[in-house]
Amino acid sequence: MRVTTIVSGSQTVAARVEGESVVPLAFPDVAALLSAADWQSAPADGPRRSLRGVELAPLVRPEKVICVGLNYRSHILEMGRDLPRHPTLFAKYADTLTGPYADIALPAVSAEVDWEVELGVVVGRTLRDASPEEALAAIAGYTVVNDVSMRDWQWRTTQWFAGKNFERSTPVGPVLVTPDEIDHARDLQLTCEVDGATVQKGTTSDLLFSPAEVLSYVSRFTTLRPGDLLATGTPGGVAAGRPDKPFLRDGQVVRVEVEGIGACVNTFRGGAR
Amino acid sequence: MRVTTIVSGSQTVAARVEGESVVPLAFPDVAALLSAADWQSAPADGPRRSLRGVELAPLVRPEKVICVGLNYRSHILEMGRDLPRHPTLFAKYADTLTGPYADIALPAVSAEVDWEVELGVVVGRTLRDASPEEALAAIAGYTVVNDVSMRDWQWRTTQWFAGKNFERSTPVGPVLVTPDEIDHARDLQLTCEVDGATVQKGTTSDLLFSPAEVLSYVSRFTTLRPGDLLATGTPGGVAAGRPDKPFLRDGQVVRVEVEGIGACVNTFRGGAR
Repeated sequence: MRVTTIVSGSQTVAARVEGESVVPLAFPDVAALLSAADWQSAPADGPRRSLRGVELAPLVRPEKVICVGLNYRSHILEMGRDLPRHPTLFAKYADTLTGPYADIALPAVSAEVDWEVELGVVVGRTLRDASPEEALAAIAGYTVVNDVSMRDWQWRTTQWFAGKNFERSTPVGPVLVTPDEIDHARDLQLTCEVDGATVQKGTTSDLLFSPAEVLSYVSRFTTLRPGDLLATGTPGGVAAGRPDKPFLRDGQVVRVEVEGIGACVNTFRGGAR
Repeated sequence: MRVTTIVSGSQTVAARVEGESVVPLAFPDVAALLSAADWQSAPADGPRRSLRGVELAPLVRPEKVICVGLNYRSHILEMGRDLPRHPTLFAKYADTLTGPYADIALPAVSAEVDWEVELGVVVGRTLRDASPEEALAAIAGYTVVNDVSMRDWQWRTTQWFAGKNFERSTPVGPVLVTPDEIDHARDLQLTCEVDGATVQKGTTSDLLFSPAEVLSYVSRFTTLRPGDLLATGTPGGVAAGRPDKPFLRDGQVVRVEVEGIGACVNTFRGGAR
């Protein structure tokens, strides 16, 4: 099953995706939908519409967005690092998220805007002190995140927070896909293309810490709730890791895709240069 | 003027503090109060009560909690570091906050729970791309924060996030004091006592980045809104910096005070040891 959040006037509404059409549901977004008991059976609440004819909002606007750094084995090893024993975690504010096809402003204050294709994980049930097995069972579904990073701000200090929290910089979507459809995203290809050229390619089977392991770990110190979003980290191939540092410029289009889920496609506009 | 947030049944309510009594106001907490125009003139909405007779809730439950590390000059220099050019920032989730007199659970998963007295700053107006002068004018008031830190989790990876985000670990309060009463907190003494013994002592005049400078900096990448909370960093004297590493144990009482504002006093309970 696939669900999404669509723009409806000045508000948003959750919707079930059925092939090329969407069926509105009586919830303001996917996070609210997931909080309902038996959400997979929510009845239609409006006429079927063409998926191409609707505008998509950020899939969720969660209370908690958790991100993992350094989580693809091959990328960690190629950078000459040892495999870490614990996931490297940081947070994003909810308003860092934006729609899967939204234009993204290149901030005047940053000259190093970079891409990061990631598997996104949406929590479906409240989790606290959960085992990895409990966490796995609490995953509502998977989505796609581009963890857009302002490297100059990210590396000004030891803490990455500022470079990861530019407002409306992080596309998420276009849909949530339930675990049954994609075998819990265990072996899906991720790709990132900039203006049609492939810059990142990886597979989720290379993840060092699985989504369930990370959610279990996080649940040892905080409570996760329906709609909360985990971004699981990115494979190699970012601009900052390339000799020519091809950071994003005005007009460039970035497409991040996870096989079997879909793609966020965003045009970057403006900027310092 | 002094305001606080008090527990009222299963809810909370903002209140004006007048000497030893509190006057309830028609807002669910200080963050909601600050969102109202002309909030300093909000009329009473209930009978006056004794301050000693009410239970205090966390002052705010903001959308954004921003924390600064390494912000006291003398502490940075005594650690042998250079003075940084940019503030080191990280985030806390709102539910990391707890009341100024609440008991705090020592988590079974951490053996290194530490204290950090900090000046807290509460935003009063929406801020985006603000100058330090605009940020200064947008400060609603000042409070006290104990940025309780689980050092073992904080230093497992390069990112401090996990050790700073244990649920209900961070007392905030007991009151918000408006800038006019304390000259914008420019020269106030901070102290932390553990079981009555002074462990930290500093003054806000030693802050490397002032509250207004930090808020201005943060507003270059994200929007701050009424009720958002800034924790400005801690002076020397934490357990992790002492030869005997006296991390907190069951039954210990930590009092963090900022001169002219008040104190959070919390008993730590339970724990791994």
